[in-house]
Amino acid sequence: MFFPDAPTIERGVLIGRDESALSEAADRLGFERTTTDWRDAIDEVDVFYNLGPNHLHAEPSIAALEAGAAVLCEKPLAADDATAERMARAAADAAVPTATAFNYRYVPAIRYAKRLIDAGELGEIRHFRGRYLQDWLVDPDAPWSWRLDADLAGSGALGDLGAHTVDLARYLVGDIAEVSGQLRTFVDERPTPDGEDSSEVTVDDAYSAQAAFENGAVGTLEASRFATGHKNDHAIAIHGSKGSLRFGLERLNELEVNLEGDRGYQRVLVTDEDDPYGERWWPPGHVLGWEHTFVHENYEFLTAVADGGEYRPNFADGATVQRVLAAIEESDERGERLRVE
Amino acid sequence: MFFPDAPTIERGVLIGRDESALSEAADRLGFERTTTDWRDAIDEVDVFYNLGPNHLHAEPSIAALEAGAAVLCEKPLAADDATAERMARAAADAAVPTATAFNYRYVPAIRYAKRLIDAGELGEIRHFRGRYLQDWLVDPDAPWSWRLDADLAGSGALGDLGAHTVDLARYLVGDIAEVSGQLRTFVDERPTPDGEDSSEVTVDDAYSAQAAFENGAVGTLEASRFATGHKNDHAIAIHGSKGSLRFGLERLNELEVNLEGDRGYQRVLVTDEDDPYGERWWPPGHVLGWEHTFVHENYEFLTAVADGGEYRPNFADGATVQRVLAAIEESDERGERLRVE
Amino acid sequence: MFFPDAPTIERGVLIGRDESALSEAADRLGFERTTTDWRDAIDEVDVFYNLGPNHLHAEPSIAALEAGAAVLCEKPLAADDATAERMARAAADAAVPTATAFNYRYVPAIRYAKRLIDAGELGEIRHFRGRYLQDWLVDPDAPWSWRLDADLAGSGALGDLGAHTVDLARYLVGDIAEVSGQLRTFVDERPTPDGEDSSEVTVDDAYSAQAAFENGAVGTLEASRFATGHKNDHAIAIHGSKGSLRFGLERLNELEVNLEGDRGYQRVLVTDEDDPYGERWWPPGHVLGWEHTFVHENYEFLTAVADGGEYRPNFADGATVQRVLAAIEESDERGERLRVE
Amino acid sequence: MFFPDAPTIERGVLIGRDESALSEAADRLGFERTTTDWRDAIDEVDVFYNLGPNHLHAEPSIAALEAGAAVLCEKPLAADDATAERMARAAADAAVPTATAFNYRYVPAIRYAKRLIDAGELGEIRHFRGRYLQDWLVDPDAPWSWRLDADLAGSGALGDLGAHTVDLARYLVGDIAEVSGQLRTFVDERPTPDGEDSSEVTVDDAYSAQAAFENGAVGTLEASRFATGHKNDHAIAIHGSKGSLRFGLERLNELEVNLEGDRGYQRVLVTDEDDPYGERWWPPGHVLGWEHTFVHENYEFLTAVADGGEYRPNFADGATVQRVLAAIEESDERGERLRVE
Repeated sequence: MFFPDAPTIERGVLIGRDESALSEAADRLGFERTTTDWRDAIDEVDVFYNLGPNHLHAEPSIAALEAGAAVLCEKPLAADDATAERMARAAADAAVPTATAFNYRYVPAIRYAKRLIDAGELGEIRHFRGRYLQDWLVDPDAPWSWRLDADLAGSGALGDLGAHTVDLARYLVGDIAEVSGQLRTFVDERPTPDGEDSSEVTVDDAYSAQAAFENGAVGTLEASRFATGHKNDHAIAIHGSKGSLRFGLERLNELEVNLEGDRGYQRVLVTDEDDPYGERWWPPGHVLGWEHTFVHENYEFLTAVADGGEYRPNFADGATVQRVLAAIEESDERGERLRVE
Repeated sequence: MFFPDAPTIERGVLIGRDESALSEAADRLGFERTTTDWRDAIDEVDVFYNLGPNHLHAEPSIAALEAGAAVLCEKPLAADDATAERMARAAADAAVPTATAFNYRYVPAIRYAKRLIDAGELGEIRHFRGRYLQDWLVDPDAPWSWRLDADLAGSGALGDLGAHTVDLARYLVGDIAEVSGQLRTFVDERPTPDGEDSSEVTVDDAYSAQAAFENGAVGTLEASRFATGHKNDHAIAIHGSKGSLRFGLERLNELEVNLEGDRGYQRVLVTDEDDPYGERWWPPGHVLGWEHTFVHENYEFLTAVADGGEYRPNFADGATVQRVLAAIEESDERGERLRVE
Repeated sequence: MFFPDAPTIERGVLIGRDESALSEAADRLGFERTTTDWRDAIDEVDVFYNLGPNHLHAEPSIAALEAGAAVLCEKPLAADDATAERMARAAADAAVPTATAFNYRYVPAIRYAKRLIDAGELGEIRHFRGRYLQDWLVDPDAPWSWRLDADLAGSGALGDLGAHTVDLARYLVGDIAEVSGQLRTFVDERPTPDGEDSSEVTVDDAYSAQAAFENGAVGTLEASRFATGHKNDHAIAIHGSKGSLRFGLERLNELEVNLEGDRGYQRVLVTDEDDPYGERWWPPGHVLGWEHTFVHENYEFLTAVADGGEYRPNFADGATVQRVLAAIEESDERGERLRVE
Repeated sequence: MFFPDAPTIERGVLIGRDESALSEAADRLGFERTTTDWRDAIDEVDVFYNLGPNHLHAEPSIAALEAGAAVLCEKPLAADDATAERMARAAADAAVPTATAFNYRYVPAIRYAKRLIDAGELGEIRHFRGRYLQDWLVDPDAPWSWRLDADLAGSGALGDLGAHTVDLARYLVGDIAEVSGQLRTFVDERPTPDGEDSSEVTVDDAYSAQAAFENGAVGTLEASRFATGHKNDHAIAIHGSKGSLRFGLERLNELEVNLEGDRGYQRVLVTDEDDPYGERWWPPGHVLGWEHTFVHENYEFLTAVADGGEYRPNFADGATVQRVLAAIEESDERGERLRVE
């Protein structure tokens, strides 16, 4: 409605495991048909959205690419960096846009930050700081889920939350050259959802990392599912030689900026007409929500598909993020600072 | 999509003045047909949305009510309190739900505030403070528009912004018994949009009011279109004998509360599952935007229409707000404190 | 120590009611002698500090002025405007500096605000907003004290807190031409401190006022001793045609400013070397406390005494504030807007 | 004045390098005599304050301890950990209180945090986060000073700022077992103060570290002199299994706490009567400044000297902090995580 120039789409096949849930969802969302076998659907779509759990990202996405479909895949791209690399290669071979669903690049305040940095308003970047805090595992009796299993999820806070932070770091500052990492699992075993048994937690509850960027900046990254009092608090800060900025996801309409000549951070409400996507929505001061990041992401991705343009972050970006995550994890295991290969 | 139990609707007739604009909008929004004469549409709809300028609220809304349609009308209900009263009487005569579009009652944080107050968590209410700050008229060369004409708009900051504040005051604290008001027009004449001429500003640029509530609380209310640096900053604060709360529209997912035993205000992110509308949307910490207040408002209104229930704020609420606004204006003219009749 | 150029002083006579308390305090503070009769001290001092309760401000201060001593008197200057006027006349007749102890003018952030306004950085001032919130009377069983007696204190929140707000309004914006006021006493009777009896509360627990300034600006003022959750929260905001600013006493090192070209308020830490009094204290970012406002106030007052210069706010300022307070009170009684005479 | 029970002191000898500056300062501060040779003063004082640059901490302090004087020494205790260790041994041998001047332990909000943690209000501590941001070296032409020379200062941001953070981490969470560090010098050479030449910068401009505490908590630490827009911003955050807290030095009267049952952080103004040192000062809500931390520190230290009690943080604490700093630096050089020995 707010993007009349967006390509029109037809919702073809909805894929899932449970037939009755599928059928209900297809009705509600307007899909033409459903299937429980993705192989059955790959050939007939122009665009394939892979929103499943991490261990189901690779095969269907690669098959879709080979069938010529553009693919948007949830983050992290894969449970490990080798698999992500395979996906990136498949994307490079296919002549279609791909997307890794790092939707926070599509927060207007983040795009405004990018605009400021690209325009040199922050000068030479010295520091990046990113932390993503949640608290849903604070209770040691919070139940086990697939997200806590290394085989299904790859990693924990690192992959689930850190992937977003690394993507923003690359988007706003540049490529990461070296990292040292620290991962921690505070609670090793949790009750199964039915409460009758317990399962092992094989992923990290929290991670931190120190990073050296290719361009000389340094960074600290951190995420936790044990940060009491924080629901979805993804915050970044950047200090440059001429200015600084701060962002927090729970106040996603705001960017705090401290530019040349300023005596303190300005709280900028990024809802003006000439702000990113600002002319699409309401008058200044009328705030957007989390959902709208997906509207922007899909608008850009589908426009790229329709027009044959480039879309970022693509599978190559997703695979690079994965390599950084893998280096952080390996650095923790070896107790050494590592280059990101 | 998030409210699968919402009544299904058909978009029948879209009414407007300009045929080509109408036709384009009807296509985009999915209306079956268009008309430039509201009389032509009134009889065939079950629900009538009146989103036109203030001086066009009364006649079509009353006609629709007389034809048996439920009506949702933009705020303020009318340009003056006598007209609003006529509308409220028509609503009382019709056996259908009516709505005055005070959408801020449907902000989850506001509904959560209401829940706290109704549960006695704030104790006896002593103070209400409401201010609505915008800055779009700060520039004396900002162009004239219909909103600056008393005949078309009724009043200025008072009716446009103050109406929302008065509605929230009534919703959260109770009925207002007495007011004293102060209105001010800082810039008397503005260039016409084409820049070739100038027109008189016959409404207030800013107002303030002192209020005494029926229940013994006191309040201060204020709005301005000259508040440099504020885009859409509607803020309220309430102090009770046991607790206090604060809200600001530019951070509409948050409510600051200070309850018994607290040593300071807690910043509550009102996005938990058991928060108002919380189970409808995303996991905790994923914020809503301004748009979502309308989703809630329409869900409640259309549900009331479909189920034959009651909806608030209705036309009677809208008319009461109008009486408060009229008393504030008259108080300013007479230089006297007035009872709200 | 930080003001080596401050005049050296000798602490002569300490005046009080209780001899043993006096003697202990004189030892601790380094006074040469004590007396329980102020008449006995007036003649021998160059400077007289009157820090007693409101109803003891006038006679000793006037006597001291007549004896040629400079006088600093606590605020509000008197319990009523006629008495304040007498004090101002005595001050005008004496050729010495006088001070009304509105120490908040000596907060560096407030002086910085004044500097910005005087330099035209805010443009034409449109709005002043001041509120002073405390919560020490929220509990209906909080004991009665002299501050709750109209004969001893003059007024309640209005005189005790509102006096500060009116002084800052005059300092930063200019003289007040018209007011309408609303006073409220929520709890009429309180237990005596010994708990055995109760006494009547004859002053206001809270007040609010609307003001029109001589220069065309408008203002809202408010104070309460029933503002649950606020200890000493004196906040002001000013909007001009080019910029805005905000200040809060609980963060007294900070001024929020929104100047031409800014997209949001900057939080300025007013501790730089070229900030008011900044070169006196520590490096930037090392904050001052409430106490330091008195250091500045005394430095300026005693320097004026030693050098024969002018000091503001003087008794004339104190008396003008009193006239505004009296007009607010009378306006409430009469239910009418009043000119400040 | 606010601590009438503090021991009375006599200011004996003031030591320095420049005779005329010394003499002026001794007059202003009330010292009996001055000397440019500390050996000349050590024998005659009961208490020795060593406020000189880092490389002058050890010899005079050790001599004073051997002469039986209690010693307060500026932080960091020494330019390297071996020297700090020698000082700690000298302190252990002497039967007198020693102090390392980590004054931030004496901020009331920090002591209140300690009280909450000791009472178990935060549960088991999971995360510590500390960052200390300044911006005085952002300009590459900011002049060289002794603080930028490894021989005179030991280290840069790490020793000057990080020492404070490590001390608070130990005070509030406990001993640090392992660290990995990253140091960075952004500008290698700076103009000498006279502007005629340039000197090499041989210390770090910024550091970060990851820490594992003995008790299982993890931490991230960071400081920079290149953090544009931050003057003296020392911030810490702690997350426990039951609650969290946050503190920032630029708002040193406040502690943000999120305790069991809270839905968000409360901003607590730590100025109530039963808060640490609260009964010493003014009524609730009247804020303290940076200076007052020294009043508390000196009160406690001098009381310990007078009463023969224990004082913390002492030289042993100072030496432990130094070992952590040394491990961070060595970890950076070796690219390995290290145990703190």
